[in-house]
Amino acid sequence: MGLSDELRAGVGPIWERVVTHPFVTEMADGSLDRVRFERYFDQDYLFLKDWVILLSLATAKAPDFDAARELVGFLHLGLGGEEGLFQEAFRERGLSREAVKALSYLPTTQNYSGYLRTQAYEGAFTEVVATLLAVEWPYLDWAQRAVKAGQKPGDRYYQTWIDIHTSPGMSGFVSWLRSVVDGSAPTPEQRDKLQGIFRDVLRYEYQFFDMAYRGETWP
Amino acid sequence: MGLSDELRAGVGPIWERVVTHPFVTEMADGSLDRVRFERYFDQDYLFLKDWVILLSLATAKAPDFDAARELVGFLHLGLGGEEGLFQEAFRERGLSREAVKALSYLPTTQNYSGYLRTQAYEGAFTEVVATLLAVEWPYLDWAQRAVKAGQKPGDRYYQTWIDIHTSPGMSGFVSWLRSVVDGSAPTPEQRDKLQGIFRDVLRYEYQFFDMAYRGETWP
Amino acid sequence: MGLSDELRAGVGPIWERVVTHPFVTEMADGSLDRVRFERYFDQDYLFLKDWVILLSLATAKAPDFDAARELVGFLHLGLGGEEGLFQEAFRERGLSREAVKALSYLPTTQNYSGYLRTQAYEGAFTEVVATLLAVEWPYLDWAQRAVKAGQKPGDRYYQTWIDIHTSPGMSGFVSWLRSVVDGSAPTPEQRDKLQGIFRDVLRYEYQFFDMAYRGETWP
Amino acid sequence: MGLSDELRAGVGPIWERVVTHPFVTEMADGSLDRVRFERYFDQDYLFLKDWVILLSLATAKAPDFDAARELVGFLHLGLGGEEGLFQEAFRERGLSREAVKALSYLPTTQNYSGYLRTQAYEGAFTEVVATLLAVEWPYLDWAQRAVKAGQKPGDRYYQTWIDIHTSPGMSGFVSWLRSVVDGSAPTPEQRDKLQGIFRDVLRYEYQFFDMAYRGETWP
Repeated sequence: MGLSDELRAGVGPIWERVVTHPFVTEMADGSLDRVRFERYFDQDYLFLKDWVILLSLATAKAPDFDAARELVGFLHLGLGGEEGLFQEAFRERGLSREAVKALSYLPTTQNYSGYLRTQAYEGAFTEVVATLLAVEWPYLDWAQRAVKAGQKPGDRYYQTWIDIHTSPGMSGFVSWLRSVVDGSAPTPEQRDKLQGIFRDVLRYEYQFFDMAYRGETWP
Repeated sequence: MGLSDELRAGVGPIWERVVTHPFVTEMADGSLDRVRFERYFDQDYLFLKDWVILLSLATAKAPDFDAARELVGFLHLGLGGEEGLFQEAFRERGLSREAVKALSYLPTTQNYSGYLRTQAYEGAFTEVVATLLAVEWPYLDWAQRAVKAGQKPGDRYYQTWIDIHTSPGMSGFVSWLRSVVDGSAPTPEQRDKLQGIFRDVLRYEYQFFDMAYRGETWP
Repeated sequence: MGLSDELRAGVGPIWERVVTHPFVTEMADGSLDRVRFERYFDQDYLFLKDWVILLSLATAKAPDFDAARELVGFLHLGLGGEEGLFQEAFRERGLSREAVKALSYLPTTQNYSGYLRTQAYEGAFTEVVATLLAVEWPYLDWAQRAVKAGQKPGDRYYQTWIDIHTSPGMSGFVSWLRSVVDGSAPTPEQRDKLQGIFRDVLRYEYQFFDMAYRGETWP
Repeated sequence: MGLSDELRAGVGPIWERVVTHPFVTEMADGSLDRVRFERYFDQDYLFLKDWVILLSLATAKAPDFDAARELVGFLHLGLGGEEGLFQEAFRERGLSREAVKALSYLPTTQNYSGYLRTQAYEGAFTEVVATLLAVEWPYLDWAQRAVKAGQKPGDRYYQTWIDIHTSPGMSGFVSWLRSVVDGSAPTPEQRDKLQGIFRDVLRYEYQFFDMAYRGETWP
């Protein structure tokens, strides 16, 4: 069992709670309320900015050009495909450019944003990679489970969401992130830090799905 | 009315809700449950690290040595007096060095930490100063209200908490922060950003008191 | 005349001294001593790391996804094409992986590195973009002059160096950088800063060619 | 021999060349040309900004409040004493506030600035501390040598320069920096990085004295 597997096991039941959250199981079987999906979608669009910062800073900290190329390749993919999907969906829903610009963070997204950017700015390379892995891997996991279960949501967006998170670009990137973590030789203190990152990110992932599913307001 | 007054007015009722939160009114009249105070105290100790980062980065971004000197003076004060107070209180409560080291963020502190560090790393100087002002000013406000109302909590820690937040070092620093904000000439877009920072910080301040008062658990 | 043209004009004669440096004129007519080219090439390979940091941080600071996409597209191009060219050349020269890893900065490259990374970390988005423009534009200029003059160096590497710096990817990126600078509305103070960046970068570019041409030693 | 002694020994003859540079030996015996000193002084004033950034970022990265307090204490000292000395000297020389504001980097100062800021932003805590040690320690060394040799320059500024670099604040800070480096347990790779930092900083220190002594112009 490599370090990435250990870190995943080390978060305990929260992993399973994330990947089987009603938000994703209902997306996979097509029963997800559209309002919930749109709430998610809008927040995820804002979150893309945080994702870009996380990947950019990982690129800046990459120890060699091969690592930088992997990270930039995934950035390229996300800013191409996924961002295009957001724009298309906004147009279809009739949201103007101004309406899109006026979208703002719900509490959980803002909290998650601060956490990820802090890792991006402060973390050593392996820590930023572990952060990315904890962000991406649960997505790959729930989407692959949906595919394995033969689920077809029968909704273009829900289906696309599963497709992009099981694409070769996605699974290849998660494999590469895992190989970086597995190939690192952390001291016990550094290992604790990586485990803490996994735990924290999974908690935010859970809250993110919950925010989408239940709605959320500012105090 | 200077810009700092406008920003304060612009956050709406949340300012009043922060400075009259039961956590601080009960601290001022001495009725605050000790468990609630200790929860606050432990989290505030962890938060000191975030405060150091915010002030350090403001120092690094200071446009001149006079500004840097003000920021370093306040850092010096906090790392001397306030940090000593924490250590003293931990000793009195019988917490070992290991127990102190093992303290960990509750959700709100971690969320607030991420927000502040993100401002510290990303913000232009005036934005970091506005962040600091939104952090410090409500403390000066509630503590001064307690003093004006002639309140004596009759508890050494509660009293010290009021004293340090109405000290000349504190009021002088808040005045200086206000003068920086008042002397800035933001574009409308930059002004919106400063207003957003005030709003966000006040929301976190409210949640911080609430976390201390009600307790909080991770998902 | 847009701001980018003004900034270019504002650096004075150093622009012309950069783009007509014997290092590039001799590269274009094929007379450049191979030792000089290899000295340049090795240092430019190390410099690629600084270039990645500059582009990554620009991406992190991008105000919107369209800007981020442009920057990531150019990163993608450089880490694909140009880095591959470096590896190929190292192989052809018989440099082992270890020999490549052991390459180290000459003084000018290290000085230039520190300058660019400082801009990357400290600069506002437009400043980082102006830095990138001052880095890339002179390359486009000398390479386009070589092409216009019909020069064929008759050396595969020299020719490729001209080709990649006149490619659509290169000219398109410079155009985009110029459009960002031209579309910015700097205050007089911000404008001075942009002009200072152009002046500083051109000085380093000149020194970089000079280092390659004449050699350089540490004190 | 602790790690700090090893790093000092590991830079080879450049240490001795720095601490016996004519700029400092002539300052100590009082024969230093005033023009050379003023060139140094002006550049060192600008350098204070870089020093503030280096110390601020070290503070932000400090692993505990004791370390942060040491760093902030030295910042406090420098922004108080040393910066006051600069202002006094400028007034005495009749330089207006505008003239002081118009001072600009000579090449070596700018190169050194970029190097130090890069360490400040990128370095892990021990690396930033090693950078600070390599900056401060040679100053303590040459100033202590001058004192031991019983030298009295007979010039108020030269004498003060020796005094502040042999003060308890200075020697205590260098001792503390050494204790941090000595107490670190670097991997071989991390050790090489620290040695490289020492070598690089000493080279810049040498060039800084040389710039002051011989003058310098931009290309």
